[in-house]
Amino acid sequence: MRSAKVGSALCLGIDPDLAALPDGFPRTLAGLERFATLLVEVAAPFAAAVKPNLAFFEAHGSAGIAALERIRATVPSEVLVIADAKRGDIGTTAAHQAVALFEVLGADAVTVNPYLGSEAVEPLLERIDRFAYVLCRTSNPGAGELQGLEVAAEGDAPPEPLYARVARRARTWGPGGTVGLVVGATAPAELAHVRGIAPGLAFLVPGVGAQGGDVEAVLASGPAIAPDGGSWPGGGLLVNVSRAIAGAATTAVPGGSRDPATLLGEAAAHWSGRFPVLP
Amino acid sequence: MRSAKVGSALCLGIDPDLAALPDGFPRTLAGLERFATLLVEVAAPFAAAVKPNLAFFEAHGSAGIAALERIRATVPSEVLVIADAKRGDIGTTAAHQAVALFEVLGADAVTVNPYLGSEAVEPLLERIDRFAYVLCRTSNPGAGELQGLEVAAEGDAPPEPLYARVARRARTWGPGGTVGLVVGATAPAELAHVRGIAPGLAFLVPGVGAQGGDVEAVLASGPAIAPDGGSWPGGGLLVNVSRAIAGAATTAVPGGSRDPATLLGEAAAHWSGRFPVLP
Repeated sequence: MRSAKVGSALCLGIDPDLAALPDGFPRTLAGLERFATLLVEVAAPFAAAVKPNLAFFEAHGSAGIAALERIRATVPSEVLVIADAKRGDIGTTAAHQAVALFEVLGADAVTVNPYLGSEAVEPLLERIDRFAYVLCRTSNPGAGELQGLEVAAEGDAPPEPLYARVARRARTWGPGGTVGLVVGATAPAELAHVRGIAPGLAFLVPGVGAQGGDVEAVLASGPAIAPDGGSWPGGGLLVNVSRAIAGAATTAVPGGSRDPATLLGEAAAHWSGRFPVLP
Repeated sequence: MRSAKVGSALCLGIDPDLAALPDGFPRTLAGLERFATLLVEVAAPFAAAVKPNLAFFEAHGSAGIAALERIRATVPSEVLVIADAKRGDIGTTAAHQAVALFEVLGADAVTVNPYLGSEAVEPLLERIDRFAYVLCRTSNPGAGELQGLEVAAEGDAPPEPLYARVARRARTWGPGGTVGLVVGATAPAELAHVRGIAPGLAFLVPGVGAQGGDVEAVLASGPAIAPDGGSWPGGGLLVNVSRAIAGAATTAVPGGSRDPATLLGEAAAHWSGRFPVLP
């Protein structure tokens, strides 16, 4: 298992933004691609997985997607690729999304939005060699507007917030072993709640670092160990860090290195060590 | 207003699938692009809007997106382009989605998923010259799994299904006049319910034709007139038809024309007439 081998539950976010490129990288798509390629080269060795955020490439049109396809090809085969696309749509469309993400881009896992129900995302859940993280409680400030709505009791489920009901239902989605949950580090109480509801599911936790999520609270809600029921790399927990690593290239300290590769590698090593995987 | 000028609330879905191309079109991306371009050429004149479904192009990778960019350039300027992308994500990502869809692709409107809350989709709602249709009650068979969950009373809102709460909240999203709702024709009772909650919002109704939605029930829930509060083309209602028009090119009747252009144009004229816009 990759996370055990690398000793970390770190997921490296790849969200390259023209406005945040370090000196020496032209503020063009070519410069962006060069930076993202460097990020993968020096930081991915410290990570269990990488998570490209598709919107940051889509913003450059077809040329941006072509750049992502090239960047993806540089990811070492033992590092999992999670396409952060937040897809999910009615059957025929979701089937095309599965082709786009699993076959064409070659992602090992995707993020999916549950609003259309499990039937709609089935094409993204059904492949036993792939994985889908279902959005449960997201890391944005307004996440609670819908996700926090109290839904009525139903069967064995008590009255509970919508995000908890999503977690409860997701336990039975797919053929088994292909579904995890996205819960933001910015909502530690909700994270603990959800881990209690679905202890057997793998978790992808964004929001640590630039978004202010608390590392200790994340780890307190469940250590980074393999879940009982699956061999999914990353085990019970993957913690995503994007800007806190990529941004290190633009925040050289006085007297320290100013080489982007060195800075990115140091930041990745630091964050990798924050999420040790227990043997 | 385009829908008044064309006399119809028809939205032409563009969901080209290699497996459904008519004879004479190679089952390659080039063949798919040629077919979609022909569809726009002969069918868009009968429509108020066209709605490309991005996943059908994403399934061909960056080359597919490049094809979509070229197809989009052939849409007459008076026909609205609705990018059916079902996006929505935390702030910085949604901002990139807005660039991708509004600026790079040049869409006039998009579809967005509400699960992350209004704060997350704000970049897709805030442009007063663009428009966003928020998924409310979708047309897929399993749509009710989450959308039908009963949520508790809150303020002036009664206990109601999640889709109704989404409609209620969406009334206040954005700066005003930039938000509509997606409600499937396959759920006529829910459509009537939602139109009652949000009579001032524009509606995009998929699911007519191949998905089996009932045209009369859609029109009974609200005629295709301009909403009180906005000048959004399509007015109060746009009804999407995809496969029932595109598929006409492969379903020539004995003795009838076998020319795809003729067949597509006839089907578009037929469906255009099913959704007359009242003056």
